[in-house]
Amino acid sequence: MKILQCVPNFSEGRDPNFLKELEAVLKRFPVKILDLSMDKDHNRADSTFLGPPEAVEAAALAVTSRAVELIDMRHHTGSHPRMGAVDVVPFIPIRGTTMAEAVEITRRFGQAFAEKHQVPVFFYEEACTSEARRNLADIRKGEYEGMVKKLQDPAWKVDAGPQVRNEKSGVTAVGARMPLIAFNVNLHTNDLEVAKRIANAVRHVGGGLRYVKAMGLSLEDKGIVQVSMNLVNYQKTPIHRAVELIRAEAARYGVLVKECELVGMVPIEALEEVVSHYLQIPGFNAKQIIEYHLLPD
Amino acid sequence: MKILQCVPNFSEGRDPNFLKELEAVLKRFPVKILDLSMDKDHNRADSTFLGPPEAVEAAALAVTSRAVELIDMRHHTGSHPRMGAVDVVPFIPIRGTTMAEAVEITRRFGQAFAEKHQVPVFFYEEACTSEARRNLADIRKGEYEGMVKKLQDPAWKVDAGPQVRNEKSGVTAVGARMPLIAFNVNLHTNDLEVAKRIANAVRHVGGGLRYVKAMGLSLEDKGIVQVSMNLVNYQKTPIHRAVELIRAEAARYGVLVKECELVGMVPIEALEEVVSHYLQIPGFNAKQIIEYHLLPD
Repeated sequence: MKILQCVPNFSEGRDPNFLKELEAVLKRFPVKILDLSMDKDHNRADSTFLGPPEAVEAAALAVTSRAVELIDMRHHTGSHPRMGAVDVVPFIPIRGTTMAEAVEITRRFGQAFAEKHQVPVFFYEEACTSEARRNLADIRKGEYEGMVKKLQDPAWKVDAGPQVRNEKSGVTAVGARMPLIAFNVNLHTNDLEVAKRIANAVRHVGGGLRYVKAMGLSLEDKGIVQVSMNLVNYQKTPIHRAVELIRAEAARYGVLVKECELVGMVPIEALEEVVSHYLQIPGFNAKQIIEYHLLPD
Repeated sequence: MKILQCVPNFSEGRDPNFLKELEAVLKRFPVKILDLSMDKDHNRADSTFLGPPEAVEAAALAVTSRAVELIDMRHHTGSHPRMGAVDVVPFIPIRGTTMAEAVEITRRFGQAFAEKHQVPVFFYEEACTSEARRNLADIRKGEYEGMVKKLQDPAWKVDAGPQVRNEKSGVTAVGARMPLIAFNVNLHTNDLEVAKRIANAVRHVGGGLRYVKAMGLSLEDKGIVQVSMNLVNYQKTPIHRAVELIRAEAARYGVLVKECELVGMVPIEALEEVVSHYLQIPGFNAKQIIEYHLLPD
């Protein structure tokens, strides 16, 4: 069975009814809802659902359409960068679906969404139409407020929809990408400088591992610091390699790893490398897990 | 969805048509066949299938009945201990099924099988009717040839069926047990004594971990030795603990682990502890694996 995941992010994190609205829409489709959550400070909601590609595509259009109706960007403030009511819509191939198929769906969805709501759309990551648009951060730079001017720049000709910011709904990024793993490593120290140095050592921009994004944070209430990572390609930079590199770097400061957090979910394939590495089982495969054989064919 | 597994072992490992016969029978039921294999030296076949408990129970009766028709113990030789045509029939709760339910099915199956074929049946492991019958090895001691005499001993009153060996089909053990993990640790040495000492240190009978059975073996063709383990309760003695103990013991001989082998399959739950331990994620749960949410409810 082909399974595609969709993780739309919305610029609404304060109205408790908003998640119920999203849920009501998604329940009309044969998709499985894995997460619906919001954050007041970010003023942002996350949704995660998956299912057969055609159902996910239809559900994505319905749920984002409902969000366009409910959210007005003219009144939006929040600590998380954002440029639209429907801020980003990533499609993620999970099982039996290729990245090429995900890209095709992404672009078809983006066209339909842009035309239906007259919202400018940019394609990002694997669906990008030029390398300058691969990174979401580059597209979103300037945020909602800066989009009027940005869209006048010929370099930012939209991929779909009108060449002008939708005042109520802003601008939307629609992309296809691999599953992203959010992984935090908590350190037995309250020295933020240590976390920052380690983050810089392991992340790509600092000369570290190619598919690691990382930053050092203070966890004030716990009195410790954290290296917070996004692992954007778990096949080429597997979890254990990032964790072991952090352990090695932390040792030079006499610091041990206190514990780690896996934020959200992980594809089973990402655990193959973890098990294979630590238990020294060459080529450990998810097919060696009994439950794997209970998955829909 | 409730899922039960059944792993019948048969005393036939040389007739290539035998596995086809088993497969043809199993395919009449809504069960998933995970493995059908045989070994010439052992002269023994293994089958593994799983599905809804009622389907597994019916498939088990059908497939063992076919084996009773096909196998004649009067002509059987082989290097693996055995006492019957259908030698052992373990039922294993996998998902949504309790051990108590598995025991109930085990005993009902055992009764039906014994009556249908007039074969003496003993219940073992969690389905045993006395502690003296918990271990399969104790029941099977004496093997096919010794069963005529053994069944005359009042201590070995059968749990179902006639109190006399079936000459053609022997005696059958029917049990309920947890999934068993077969795990081998290969060592960077050809010194068999090292493997034997380590095996003895980690296994329960030698003073080691409670749910570990282990032995030291030579892998002649690879020129190395192996600690071959059965982990019979992965919840109380998880995989990583056995492996790390072997590593520690091997170090005193200056020996490193070359690689490990997971023989057959492992329940997803057994990997929770592995991931939790090595990645230091307290309480890592299979629900954090995306595919887990695609399993039948």
